[in-house]
Amino acid sequence: MPSEFELIARYFSRPAGPGQLGVGDDCALFPVPSGSHVATSTDLLVEGRHFYPDVDPAALGHKSLAVNLSDLAAMGARPLGCVLGLALPRADDAWLAPFSQGWHALADTWQCPLIGGDTTGSALGLTISVTVFGAVQAGQALRRDAAMPGDDIWVSGELGAADVAYRLLDGQLAADPVRLAATRRALEWPQPRVGLGLALAGLAHAAIDISDGLLQDLGHILAASKVGAQVRYADLPVAASLEGLDEGVRRRAVLGGGDVYELCFTAAPSDRERVQQAAHGAGVRVTRVGSVQADSGLAVLDAAGRPMAELPAGFDHFPASARP
Amino acid sequence: MPSEFELIARYFSRPAGPGQLGVGDDCALFPVPSGSHVATSTDLLVEGRHFYPDVDPAALGHKSLAVNLSDLAAMGARPLGCVLGLALPRADDAWLAPFSQGWHALADTWQCPLIGGDTTGSALGLTISVTVFGAVQAGQALRRDAAMPGDDIWVSGELGAADVAYRLLDGQLAADPVRLAATRRALEWPQPRVGLGLALAGLAHAAIDISDGLLQDLGHILAASKVGAQVRYADLPVAASLEGLDEGVRRRAVLGGGDVYELCFTAAPSDRERVQQAAHGAGVRVTRVGSVQADSGLAVLDAAGRPMAELPAGFDHFPASARP
Repeated sequence: MPSEFELIARYFSRPAGPGQLGVGDDCALFPVPSGSHVATSTDLLVEGRHFYPDVDPAALGHKSLAVNLSDLAAMGARPLGCVLGLALPRADDAWLAPFSQGWHALADTWQCPLIGGDTTGSALGLTISVTVFGAVQAGQALRRDAAMPGDDIWVSGELGAADVAYRLLDGQLAADPVRLAATRRALEWPQPRVGLGLALAGLAHAAIDISDGLLQDLGHILAASKVGAQVRYADLPVAASLEGLDEGVRRRAVLGGGDVYELCFTAAPSDRERVQQAAHGAGVRVTRVGSVQADSGLAVLDAAGRPMAELPAGFDHFPASARP
Repeated sequence: MPSEFELIARYFSRPAGPGQLGVGDDCALFPVPSGSHVATSTDLLVEGRHFYPDVDPAALGHKSLAVNLSDLAAMGARPLGCVLGLALPRADDAWLAPFSQGWHALADTWQCPLIGGDTTGSALGLTISVTVFGAVQAGQALRRDAAMPGDDIWVSGELGAADVAYRLLDGQLAADPVRLAATRRALEWPQPRVGLGLALAGLAHAAIDISDGLLQDLGHILAASKVGAQVRYADLPVAASLEGLDEGVRRRAVLGGGDVYELCFTAAPSDRERVQQAAHGAGVRVTRVGSVQADSGLAVLDAAGRPMAELPAGFDHFPASARP
């Protein structure tokens, strides 16, 4: 079995970016464009909670980086690099090869080189920690607290598929191989909207990536910005793969489903054309789904314009079942 | 039991540094001094491997940050901020309060504010991930590959105590409460040499922090710099708490003991006075212990100048017992 140092070299020592010092010293070093701030985000992914032990390692490598790049996207930041921590039950080539392949393919897409990390054994199962760094011009970051009354609310891509796939795999929904096949990619291979975030920096007001569900994540924007919102349920972009589902399941998936990694953002109505152009340039569909209100509170309106009751609750990382 | 968001707010939402955006958005944001590169390091600490389940939470909070600040010190970087990931079996105030206290006290000492993080539940025991950021003037970083033939080799502080404490706690040495009391603080409350690293930037050549043992870590400098070295065993600064120990135990602790977090660095003989002044200014003792050679290889010389045999092996994070 290879040593820790051999493992790192084999799978994770890759060329750093221009001017960077990568894996192999006490610290990695990277330059930052003049006038930019560094944006950083970190995530900890735990076996059995954030992923199944038998998940495709290539998908896991992809997603571990994707969820962090999604945070850079939600700030309008350009990726500079990332570091990876792995606590591994075994140093297993059959797992590390596809994991690193899935990771590096996405890192290459967004020019986000792996510049450092830590590898350790673990008797406690697999844990993955990821920290990403990006650059954003001072004053151009898409912050949560910048939504203005009257802003349009936009959502990128489509909603609902990841939640349905998760509930099928978790046994909360009756087995349905056809629907699982149609939804699973959304759950396991989410595409971070880095290009869209860059195009929206300095144009959109507030932004967040949808990791815990549209209502909960939009709620974070509203709380930070001290405003409220109305969302039009019929205008939400719902994945075609949800067709034919029970309305309660569909509603929970669309409004409350996590693991989406689309952007929810607000922008001035006068900038509708520019937002559409930015999205077109990034190759991502965006949809206007509501508006920001001066009054606090978040209402979801039905097709008749009436507030809907029975909205899904948010996701908490300490689930109720673990509470005393 | 409090929610994830309440937990974060209670223990980890602290004021960010000047010009920084801290906990609470998709990313943290921080400015970087003009002409500086960002230095970053990450560590993953796993219960049962890097710490005992019953360790003092305040000490664990301190050490989790200390080992990462030590990496900034070894690059000569000034701390800018850090992020923390916690996978927690329970959201337990009796643990989080002292852990965060130990953490923040050290963060305040070195002005390294906690600017982001991730908290999650875990059925797999406690895992801690830390990533630190620092700034170092371009070209001034203390890299591993910069040792020159003829350089002095220096070590800060004292060696050996952390290893003895670890082996006493682990049962590899016979119980000895007096010696444990004398050595335990070195293991549980290591002091990162941030001030010394800053004073050495642009003065010393190569540097590393001693995490895996003097011989192994000095070996990393030699390999990266394509040089060799002679170390004088009698000149090594050994902790007084090792007095009276069996010579084999002492030698293993001094030459091979990990978890030290002192700096090992090289500098030109013509800079001896300046190195001593830098250390004096930082309030840290430094000792000259050997010299860099053009020929490869690492020899430890006894008092008569003869190479010692039976040197301790390095530490591997996948121990031999786990190998097939």
